[in-house]
Amino acid sequence: MLEVGPVPGDPCLRADAARNRARLLEAAARLIAEHGAAGVTMEAVAAEAQVGKGTVFRRFGDRTGLLMALLDHSARQLQSDFMSGPPPLGPGAPPLDRLRAFGLAVLRRSADQLDLQLAAQPDADRRFSHPAAGALSTHITVLLRQIIPDADCDLLAQTLMASLDPALIHHLTRQRGMPRERLEAGWTDLVARVTRTEPPR
Amino acid sequence: MLEVGPVPGDPCLRADAARNRARLLEAAARLIAEHGAAGVTMEAVAAEAQVGKGTVFRRFGDRTGLLMALLDHSARQLQSDFMSGPPPLGPGAPPLDRLRAFGLAVLRRSADQLDLQLAAQPDADRRFSHPAAGALSTHITVLLRQIIPDADCDLLAQTLMASLDPALIHHLTRQRGMPRERLEAGWTDLVARVTRTEPPR
Repeated sequence: MLEVGPVPGDPCLRADAARNRARLLEAAARLIAEHGAAGVTMEAVAAEAQVGKGTVFRRFGDRTGLLMALLDHSARQLQSDFMSGPPPLGPGAPPLDRLRAFGLAVLRRSADQLDLQLAAQPDADRRFSHPAAGALSTHITVLLRQIIPDADCDLLAQTLMASLDPALIHHLTRQRGMPRERLEAGWTDLVARVTRTEPPR
Repeated sequence: MLEVGPVPGDPCLRADAARNRARLLEAAARLIAEHGAAGVTMEAVAAEAQVGKGTVFRRFGDRTGLLMALLDHSARQLQSDFMSGPPPLGPGAPPLDRLRAFGLAVLRRSADQLDLQLAAQPDADRRFSHPAAGALSTHITVLLRQIIPDADCDLLAQTLMASLDPALIHHLTRQRGMPRERLEAGWTDLVARVTRTEPPR
């Protein structure tokens, strides 16, 4: 994960720089959603965001820097959505609804960024310990504790997260041709079984 | 996975060669169980199996060849245990008992060979498609179909397998210090939830 620290110097320049950065990342995200990761070049992002190519290079260094910044941006977006966004993903909905919405949001994000997520997947000995994975499984653990307080929610959260592993989604959708709807229904069913509740009608 | 083909030539020699090979692999497995993967050197295996060092080198080429052969041997052993071994892992026990026993057998195998399994883990885009993973998830799918025929057993099998991922076991036991007993209880609980049955007393 790239660290997105503040830009030093003048506060107005900082705000400008942050806006420009976000604009470039949103342009890159649109390109990925439309053409896959292969469609994201420095030139294409510059054209999509209507800025000069030099601006994109100055900001991200190279294509890998851009793609890593994009993954980081979207991970932060997801995190902010479930921490403080509107329900059912964000606070305000019952924990079971939030848990269902969480998996669907992760599956939707993976549908757009699967190539990137696969390429950025850490080695086996750090896959579950890197901070982004920790933030997601902590969120699931907290929700599970509200739904099934007597269970080993920590372990069940890991299992739920493992069912959303990008490598597994890649295998199921691309190598075995399952439609995304089946994975979404599978998540809803899994949540119902793990929490011993009835699936929503 | 190394292919374990027949040794060409005289049938008695072939049988002899297979026996010697198995003896060396069992010696290596004992060393791993006692000292971890670091304790397995060509010299140590030769000493443990009471053969000359040259025999081990002729058979496996180098240490990597030996370790891969060992993983392959133990994967085949597990497969033969659940396909044709004694119940509850093998045929003859109710499918729910076999499913419980399967996860415990996988956890036990990982406890002995975790370093090896981590080192041999394929890249993200082949992790779920390589033949060894396929054999295990097919077995779980077949058992689930007997227990919960109306469910999407194919997807649930992937989730159950994902909860036994060596990278996850590594994270939980070594990075977070959970005892193996907790993972074993977690598997039994997960099976009960996924199948909507009561956990065994």
